Amino acid sequence: MSVMGKALFVDLSNKKTKEEKVEREIYRKFLAGDGLGAYYMNKLLDGKEDPFGPSNVLIVAPGLLVGSSIPTCGKTVFFAKSPLTEGWGEGVFGGSFGLALKQAGYDALIIRGKSREPSYLLIDDGSPEIKSAEHLWSKSTRETADILKKDEGKDFSIACIGLGGENLVRYAIIDCDDRQAGRGGLGAVMGSKKLKAIAVRGTKDIEVTDPEKVLRLTMEWYKKLVESQAYRDDTLYGTGEFLEWMNRERGTFPTRNWREGVFKERKEIDPYYWVPRYSIKNLACIQCVKPCGKAFVIKEGKYRDTKLDGVEYETLFALGGNCGNPSIEAVAKANELCDLYGLDTISTGGCIGFAMDLYENGILTKKDTGGIELKFGNSEAVVKLVELIAKREGIGDVLAEGVKRAAKIIGKGAERYAVHVRGMEPPAYDVRGIKGMALAFMTSPRGACHLRSGAYALELTGKFWKYEGVDRLSSKNKGKEIADMENFMAVYDCLGACKFSRSLFLLDGFSDILEAVIGERYTEDDLLKIGERICNLKHLFNLKCGWKKEDVKLPPKMRIPIPEGASKGSFVSEKEEKEMLLDYFKARGWEEDGKIPREKLEELGIAEFFDH
Amino acid sequence: MSVMGKALFVDLSNKKTKEEKVEREIYRKFLAGDGLGAYYMNKLLDGKEDPFGPSNVLIVAPGLLVGSSIPTCGKTVFFAKSPLTEGWGEGVFGGSFGLALKQAGYDALIIRGKSREPSYLLIDDGSPEIKSAEHLWSKSTRETADILKKDEGKDFSIACIGLGGENLVRYAIIDCDDRQAGRGGLGAVMGSKKLKAIAVRGTKDIEVTDPEKVLRLTMEWYKKLVESQAYRDDTLYGTGEFLEWMNRERGTFPTRNWREGVFKERKEIDPYYWVPRYSIKNLACIQCVKPCGKAFVIKEGKYRDTKLDGVEYETLFALGGNCGNPSIEAVAKANELCDLYGLDTISTGGCIGFAMDLYENGILTKKDTGGIELKFGNSEAVVKLVELIAKREGIGDVLAEGVKRAAKIIGKGAERYAVHVRGMEPPAYDVRGIKGMALAFMTSPRGACHLRSGAYALELTGKFWKYEGVDRLSSKNKGKEIADMENFMAVYDCLGACKFSRSLFLLDGFSDILEAVIGERYTEDDLLKIGERICNLKHLFNLKCGWKKEDVKLPPKMRIPIPEGASKGSFVSEKEEKEMLLDYFKARGWEEDGKIPREKLEELGIAEFFDH
Repeated sequence: MSVMGKALFVDLSNKKTKEEKVEREIYRKFLAGDGLGAYYMNKLLDGKEDPFGPSNVLIVAPGLLVGSSIPTCGKTVFFAKSPLTEGWGEGVFGGSFGLALKQAGYDALIIRGKSREPSYLLIDDGSPEIKSAEHLWSKSTRETADILKKDEGKDFSIACIGLGGENLVRYAIIDCDDRQAGRGGLGAVMGSKKLKAIAVRGTKDIEVTDPEKVLRLTMEWYKKLVESQAYRDDTLYGTGEFLEWMNRERGTFPTRNWREGVFKERKEIDPYYWVPRYSIKNLACIQCVKPCGKAFVIKEGKYRDTKLDGVEYETLFALGGNCGNPSIEAVAKANELCDLYGLDTISTGGCIGFAMDLYENGILTKKDTGGIELKFGNSEAVVKLVELIAKREGIGDVLAEGVKRAAKIIGKGAERYAVHVRGMEPPAYDVRGIKGMALAFMTSPRGACHLRSGAYALELTGKFWKYEGVDRLSSKNKGKEIADMENFMAVYDCLGACKFSRSLFLLDGFSDILEAVIGERYTEDDLLKIGERICNLKHLFNLKCGWKKEDVKLPPKMRIPIPEGASKGSFVSEKEEKEMLLDYFKARGWEEDGKIPREKLEELGIAEFFDH
Repeated sequence: MSVMGKALFVDLSNKKTKEEKVEREIYRKFLAGDGLGAYYMNKLLDGKEDPFGPSNVLIVAPGLLVGSSIPTCGKTVFFAKSPLTEGWGEGVFGGSFGLALKQAGYDALIIRGKSREPSYLLIDDGSPEIKSAEHLWSKSTRETADILKKDEGKDFSIACIGLGGENLVRYAIIDCDDRQAGRGGLGAVMGSKKLKAIAVRGTKDIEVTDPEKVLRLTMEWYKKLVESQAYRDDTLYGTGEFLEWMNRERGTFPTRNWREGVFKERKEIDPYYWVPRYSIKNLACIQCVKPCGKAFVIKEGKYRDTKLDGVEYETLFALGGNCGNPSIEAVAKANELCDLYGLDTISTGGCIGFAMDLYENGILTKKDTGGIELKFGNSEAVVKLVELIAKREGIGDVLAEGVKRAAKIIGKGAERYAVHVRGMEPPAYDVRGIKGMALAFMTSPRGACHLRSGAYALELTGKFWKYEGVDRLSSKNKGKEIADMENFMAVYDCLGACKFSRSLFLLDGFSDILEAVIGERYTEDDLLKIGERICNLKHLFNLKCGWKKEDVKLPPKMRIPIPEGASKGSFVSEKEEKEMLLDYFKARGWEEDGKIPREKLEELGIAEFFDH
């Protein structure tokens, strides 16, 4: 059984820790990872909590298959009530931290309370200890990890925050050995608890039911994976390989704060340009056979000695195209700073692009920006703004709140330029030309998100799994599609499976795997039911946090037709928006106002969490 | 314990089969794969056997780590007395055949005798059966495998021969699900036994001592592998990625039957040219996370519908540069024909280049070639010659004997153009500029070979493992280097580890792995001792076959300086050749005539095989 059967509770206020057995029945209903998080978030929070208060929790749970050797299944999830959306918050990451936690004996770590002084949590094979982090405070993520590895041992995995989290930037990330739990400001929750880092070492064996079968399946799957179509390009060019196609073939690469869907100045940020020039090495997550990651190094010039794992597709958009920034070196430098300060690159780029749009429209002036000529394409300004946001200096202090709050603070009609859904800055999919994704942005429990449904691949190519002939420019029949995909993807986050493997494993690939790993066979339908259960549980959490249907809307820019390129003329009307949302509620069996009827929760066996 | 503890003996003459227990002590001394082969070859043969007679054996043994999930360790070895060298013959391959054999219950399959009629051997989870192959005779390898999978079940792994093996071409290969046991004519041994194919299905678990540790090590190693330097290029361009560097940086790419060390017309055969145009998919061996293989398809033109797994670096040389053939389509077509007829591409290209050299020098004429204008660069002639060799028609019948015998048959001074060592046509390393490899060609137990020592990487880059500052243009101090590398590589062939992983695992990487897999810890020194034991055992076999020091010599062309490029002027003198060989014998602790003293065999615990 590749779960450890235990959760570790740590209360930073009173420095008490306790272990709790997780019953087999819980795993059966929720698997692990995402499911275990959804269970505990609902069990422990009533939704009224201040995200920065001691009553908010920070949870981390490795996927069920973490440690099993099944390729690409090494993902782990952080959870908390999000300070960006004030609702469901989660961030999936691929570092070794989750494996270490599991080897230390835990399927979930649940942190509550608030430390008075900067502290870090040390877990050495199951002996939790809260230690002073005075010497680490204000250090970068890289410095923090280096110091902790030096002090505690280099076989520790480190999750930590940078200045962003300390300064409660609402989209601060948690760095996990150079991978990031990225969205929704979970790093700021950690900062609010004065928790600088979590260092974990584990040496326990992770047992599986039928080890020989797991070995055989491991071999079978890694052959399938490495022979798959997507493998080759990703290995060489990483996720950015997608960029040129999104620009040229689909015209849905959001550019200059979503003014355009094609970034004409994209030459340098295309990995076909920069990989041969700057990438010195492939990098892979733990338990992965496909190295999407690229060790990016700038050896000379203004940004000399820049070193990072990147640049990912989303960041090429956020700090590149969305800011009209054509310089790959500036994108890489800004990306490195985001990593060191601990900021979400998507939201950071969203905020900078938003500020540039305001500047060009006269809503912000040099007086507001401290003299910075904040025009689209000002590469140096992008780099500078990252620093100001992390330090909460000048305009950076406003932008650190995210575009939704920043627009309110700035006023003067700034809201027209604020691109977000439920407070979350969206990733690199211009949904005016990918209408199913417009719906997915609205229904994602954590706000505008591409990965809760992963429907972009289906929408952009027209087929995936049981769907084919999908028309991305139509808003018809999207409700069931997105609900199905959300259920599908929730299973991936329970198992710790990388979503880039979704076209290979699909769901039925896991039937044999789960039988070998945990001794129980799940059909595709069984898994989808679990996915549905978890999606409902996340929505239930949002309802408890005050989710209202009227808050679920696309930003004003989605009404303006895409001006050029392959999706020229496409936009999402208010009518389409409303119809899609209703269609989704119907597909989910929810009420017209988005509430979940008690019968649905009973059907899913989660009525115990019902309180509305 | 990831070995099955049994060998299966099949006698084709009397159709009897028997199983034999392999004692734990045998595994301790020889591991499996290459070691088990060396043990049985010496135990069962006295070296006087006619390679094509019923007393020759055909052995196949999967590496120790096959089936363990340790990445890249899925290799298996065929053995027989070679009809090309009349000495030690072995061919390592990466197909799923070895895994199937192991899952059927066997660490070695040993075939003796000779069938009267065409037959195939069916092993279905340990129930061997000899069946008629009348309907398969003269079929291509692809057709044979397809028919057997259709008749017996698609989960059977197939090792089979084509027309080359049937016609006793002395360098016929055994095709193993599109991977090839390539060198030394083991396919012809199979043909001489009238054994068209071996079909194996296995469903048994392969047990390991500590499955959880194996799972963890599997994950650790696949991360290291996919992040390694060599990984990225190989994944995209395959082994041919090496070609441009060998031409430009080292000038040691043998060209036009070893006239030159740089192939100027190489544009098309460079994978940077052909991968984007012809390769539709990556292909990987079983148990491998690095897809070196490329599915190559020609969709239109003269060679339309050509489909193969390739083209490998060695073949780009053999059927490309060595024949002065600049056409990638002709190289690919000739490669496909070699695969379908079951011919070793290296020896085939060696023989064709040799014939072209003779033609250009007037030793062969149009009368001999049946009207073919056999000049270097005649792409169509290369394709045609492959067919003639497989069918043993016209000049092809002579070339089917290999360059050594063909030169004797042709006479007229042809021997000056015959490039071979001990009868084996060499691979793509112009050893005039890689002197350690010149020695390695001489000392390899199977004749001119790059893989028994793998020293090309060390020689060409100057460093590997414990060696650094190695000078490829010097013949000094090569004896110990080559002996060390041969011992090192023999360990890889015992374990089934792919040699392309050698810079990662080195030897000490296997200490933990072997402890987890078989419950015994071996240090680097322990493993090197096993490697040495096996190298001595192979040489002992050659001695029994009549190996003589005076037969071990480089071809006359090695005395002619490389005319151009980065290695211009370099050659191997007779003095260097002799000194290197003596230096090697000394490093091995052998006598000056190359015999092994009894004390050495006693020291290695293999004196029982001593008979000279």
